Amino acid sequence: MSRTSFSPADQQVREWLGRQCTSYGLTMHTDGIGNIILGLPQAAVPAASPVWAGSHLDSVPEGGRFDGIVGSIAALEALRVIAERGIPLQRPVQAVIFADEEGNYHHLLGSTAMVANYPWAELAQLRGRDGDRLVDALAGMGWDPAEATGTARQAGDVHAFLELHIEQGPVLEAAGVDIGIVTSIVGLGGGQVTFTGRQDHAGTTPMRQRLDPMPAAGAFLAQLPAIAAAAGDAAVLTCGLIEAEPGGTNVVPHQVTAHLDFRDPHPQALASLEQGIIEAASAAAEAHGVQSRYTRHSITRPVPLDPVLQDELHLSAKAQGLSTTTLPSGAGHDSQNMAQIAPTAMVFIPSRHGRSHSPAEHSSWAAIENGANVLLDVLLGLASAEAGRG
Amino acid sequence: MSRTSFSPADQQVREWLGRQCTSYGLTMHTDGIGNIILGLPQAAVPAASPVWAGSHLDSVPEGGRFDGIVGSIAALEALRVIAERGIPLQRPVQAVIFADEEGNYHHLLGSTAMVANYPWAELAQLRGRDGDRLVDALAGMGWDPAEATGTARQAGDVHAFLELHIEQGPVLEAAGVDIGIVTSIVGLGGGQVTFTGRQDHAGTTPMRQRLDPMPAAGAFLAQLPAIAAAAGDAAVLTCGLIEAEPGGTNVVPHQVTAHLDFRDPHPQALASLEQGIIEAASAAAEAHGVQSRYTRHSITRPVPLDPVLQDELHLSAKAQGLSTTTLPSGAGHDSQNMAQIAPTAMVFIPSRHGRSHSPAEHSSWAAIENGANVLLDVLLGLASAEAGRG
Repeated sequence: MSRTSFSPADQQVREWLGRQCTSYGLTMHTDGIGNIILGLPQAAVPAASPVWAGSHLDSVPEGGRFDGIVGSIAALEALRVIAERGIPLQRPVQAVIFADEEGNYHHLLGSTAMVANYPWAELAQLRGRDGDRLVDALAGMGWDPAEATGTARQAGDVHAFLELHIEQGPVLEAAGVDIGIVTSIVGLGGGQVTFTGRQDHAGTTPMRQRLDPMPAAGAFLAQLPAIAAAAGDAAVLTCGLIEAEPGGTNVVPHQVTAHLDFRDPHPQALASLEQGIIEAASAAAEAHGVQSRYTRHSITRPVPLDPVLQDELHLSAKAQGLSTTTLPSGAGHDSQNMAQIAPTAMVFIPSRHGRSHSPAEHSSWAAIENGANVLLDVLLGLASAEAGRG
Repeated sequence: MSRTSFSPADQQVREWLGRQCTSYGLTMHTDGIGNIILGLPQAAVPAASPVWAGSHLDSVPEGGRFDGIVGSIAALEALRVIAERGIPLQRPVQAVIFADEEGNYHHLLGSTAMVANYPWAELAQLRGRDGDRLVDALAGMGWDPAEATGTARQAGDVHAFLELHIEQGPVLEAAGVDIGIVTSIVGLGGGQVTFTGRQDHAGTTPMRQRLDPMPAAGAFLAQLPAIAAAAGDAAVLTCGLIEAEPGGTNVVPHQVTAHLDFRDPHPQALASLEQGIIEAASAAAEAHGVQSRYTRHSITRPVPLDPVLQDELHLSAKAQGLSTTTLPSGAGHDSQNMAQIAPTAMVFIPSRHGRSHSPAEHSSWAAIENGANVLLDVLLGLASAEAGRG
């Protein structure tokens, strides 16, 4: 499935969603950047800050049919059940579908705009992977792009936010657990280590007279698992891209660059992970008589999720006879933005073989039903009975 | 300097060479593939197989002014001295300038054609880096390309061949030695090691659940110097090109491929070097729970040079007060072809900082004079007095 936000496929799913709302008697509102808010019939809504559940309906190119969609449809289903059964509420329950979570125009576009208004100048510069401008895409949807600058909510506007999502990793499946309660969304670092030596002829330069950065890069890369382990159990460290320069098979390279992705749910561990990278690179370089240089490209802090909501998710799952575990989210989610303005929690369900962002992505109907039931139960606990935090 | 064979720059140097021959009273003959043979005036030439000295005048693009040129001009100078002084000879001395040594159309083109005729079908397929056909380039020189199929000499046609060349490496300069006597031209292997694991999300896959080929590739690359050392002092092993697939910074790669260049002057050591590569790759893969596969792309056997000629070079240098050492040639040379049809030897002179194939290439006039004097002395020993092998 390839459903980029504001594409024809996205227009189709928005129209489908409109038909569902009509058929269930729900309201549907789209904000200036394309986030959708679904609500119960006006008559049923008390005057209080709403409880939100939701996720996103866009996908990466050649993506799967579960990432984002499970949480979006489960939120719709929760509203349908509440409306159909006429469950009395103390505060509104609404579903939110965030625009462009997968970041064709900007990573987590819709939820970013939900917590801080985009200045026009910034908005006007955003382009998709095909080079098209976001503001043109918004206009193409029939919307006024100027309204995309006024989408932010304030702290307190939303009582709580819950996001059901597939795990996108192998932990729950491997552990045979039904429900994952997300403790935090990892902090994400990106950077590179460059090993620098001296370019030489691969035939005429004896080994002892070389300043070859490749063995040093190798010694560093061999330690990736150990560097992560030293920072903590939840740390991950990946080199998915490496380049030697000038890149000829018969030339001793003068430079080898390892591009790194490193993540940890704990700010302290994320910092020590980055420090471990720097120290290991330096030691590998020194052992092989070359130089190393670490360059940080970006770093985002981990976002802890609400502990009270985590408890409620756990109690709800337990009451339904579902097994739970806690885990960090290794990927970014709209929840990391929503946590800035509302108590936020995430529920993970198992992903088959941990696959995601591919057509192989799959979660069973039973797993989705488990997640949707926990979501509905905690939503009702928050909105209907003044239970817990409600 | 950029002087590709059969380019306008090559035409200019051929015309220049013609003027030198005219001025010194030498003969000049060009064979069907563009190799040039310079000879003494017919009157001075006894009827016997000739002693040859020479090298090449073409360069790599953006190359230096010494590689090939030193040996070519020293051979011309030897003829000039012999002609000018009227030194009596028992057999002819000739200079040879091989075409396209740097292999725009084919590695060591001219000397390859000197020892085995090219079939027309093969010749017609050869193209330069710009896509041009060799046969068109030959026609562009005003030659009949059909004559390029009949250039080979037989064993015995040439009494001995001597090539003076810059070292293109740092050994002589580092040792402070005047003259390098080449023992052999290394055997050259090319291949790749592919480490295969499983592609995973860099954020959501815990370290312990990965099959990441990158740490295995690292562990292998860290051992490059040790693998070479285990094969022998003269072995060299280089990874100048490495690729991770799919090559995204936020993706655990499913495959890492290290492209390898390995060389050794001894056939046994070359074989054990390749075996060492395979074993080290396999051990690194096993230690990190992934697979490795070695693929040989090509291998050429080492070419030993003539030991009697090596002795004569040594004695000549010693008599002239020059220090000598023996060393293998880590790069390929026309001598490796000539050794198939004639006793062949090479003389190396120091290269500043070991630089070659770059504008930084340099050998001092003193070093060139030393080499040219040894070359002339051994040529005369072979041709004038029936000394040694003569």
